Amino acid sequence: MPKIAKLTNFTMNTHIKKLELKTKKFFDIIDLTEKVEEFLKEINATEGLVNIFGRHTTTAIKINEKEDGFFQDIKKLIFEEIVNPSKTYQHNNLEVRAKNTMCEIEKECLNGHSHVAQMLLGASSETVPVQNGKMLLGKWQRILFFELDHSKTREIVFSFVGKCK
Amino acid sequence: MPKIAKLTNFTMNTHIKKLELKTKKFFDIIDLTEKVEEFLKEINATEGLVNIFGRHTTTAIKINEKEDGFFQDIKKLIFEEIVNPSKTYQHNNLEVRAKNTMCEIEKECLNGHSHVAQMLLGASSETVPVQNGKMLLGKWQRILFFELDHSKTREIVFSFVGKCK
Amino acid sequence: MPKIAKLTNFTMNTHIKKLELKTKKFFDIIDLTEKVEEFLKEINATEGLVNIFGRHTTTAIKINEKEDGFFQDIKKLIFEEIVNPSKTYQHNNLEVRAKNTMCEIEKECLNGHSHVAQMLLGASSETVPVQNGKMLLGKWQRILFFELDHSKTREIVFSFVGKCK
Repeated sequence: MPKIAKLTNFTMNTHIKKLELKTKKFFDIIDLTEKVEEFLKEINATEGLVNIFGRHTTTAIKINEKEDGFFQDIKKLIFEEIVNPSKTYQHNNLEVRAKNTMCEIEKECLNGHSHVAQMLLGASSETVPVQNGKMLLGKWQRILFFELDHSKTREIVFSFVGKCK
Repeated sequence: MPKIAKLTNFTMNTHIKKLELKTKKFFDIIDLTEKVEEFLKEINATEGLVNIFGRHTTTAIKINEKEDGFFQDIKKLIFEEIVNPSKTYQHNNLEVRAKNTMCEIEKECLNGHSHVAQMLLGASSETVPVQNGKMLLGKWQRILFFELDHSKTREIVFSFVGKCK
Repeated sequence: MPKIAKLTNFTMNTHIKKLELKTKKFFDIIDLTEKVEEFLKEINATEGLVNIFGRHTTTAIKINEKEDGFFQDIKKLIFEEIVNPSKTYQHNNLEVRAKNTMCEIEKECLNGHSHVAQMLLGASSETVPVQNGKMLLGKWQRILFFELDHSKTREIVFSFVGKCK
């Protein structure tokens, strides 16, 4: 016997919002936390999952503390010790590179260190639980966007799947 | 012409459960797999996605094998070779640190290595497909919680979005 | 007063598809982007989240550029500089290893470097927003499956949660 969807004071739904932002420099870090909170209010979200996705191969979305000393530590580790831009990257060898992977402006392509850093620093998105319309972030957690390349216009996508009022 | 939701033997829904756990030491590793399975039973989940989220900036949720030798290997790599706690971390320079980032107990703040390790080891959550009420984990996959700081009380959130009976 | 689900031209739903693939060598990289796009068409997905999950502890699902030079760079960094297979791994010390973690073929177990690389390279899945039936990937983003062990048969799971026509 089929079950009829319960009558309740919410509707299961999805919502998507695109956002553009301009980073100012190499390793610029932008706190997206409040923008995600605004999005959840706009769509009357109550409970579910929100995903914060960066549409780029040389940026990272990560959740951690917004603290300048820590930002210096991670920059030093990644871009001085592990993936120093002065090292040789095959990605930057434009003579052998497939044409369809070339950038319109040639020097835009010389970012081997940025791609490798993206691989080490994490996934292209974070997914966060939402309850009573708010993300269940811990006390120190902020949703951070890391620019691993030089200053650029970047696109972020917020997606919610769950219950809305 | 609008389409009416199909009558079926399930309801699309979301469920959230918070969990507290106490880690016993630096680099304590806790297997959460059975606790996630219990959660899926409690809510009568059938098909969808379950997200396991840690509410902390110095812990990591990762899926890998539960094997002691491997745990030693990753600890050695991260905390001896790459992010040795004996190195200098700007995060630990309390003289220049913004007041609103200070901990109640001062020495709690001296965890620069833990923050950087969190950035390397991965995202704050894992998201796993669920079918017939069970996670579609492979033979060796376990959902592991990594304490990257010292012994602490920690909070985890399990969230399910999908079909329930 | 309970609210009745809106009558609209879509249904909230979940869909799951399992896929098998055979990797050909250590560090084989397989582009899954088109296979995910086909899945979204098959299920008439319109808007929501799609998760691409690898059921293995020595593989990684990552979104980045499909470019051979970059693939060489990341292989060199991970498997020459950071997790060289010639280093000593406790995971490979079969004399002290718990019986229930042993492989059927002994040498299958000697992959300490692969497990550690999986921990560094990222999560077991990526989650991507879907709008108008298509993933909102950026220009250079491809969904890549990385084999971090030797040639093997591997299983991937695609899961969609959201609106379908």
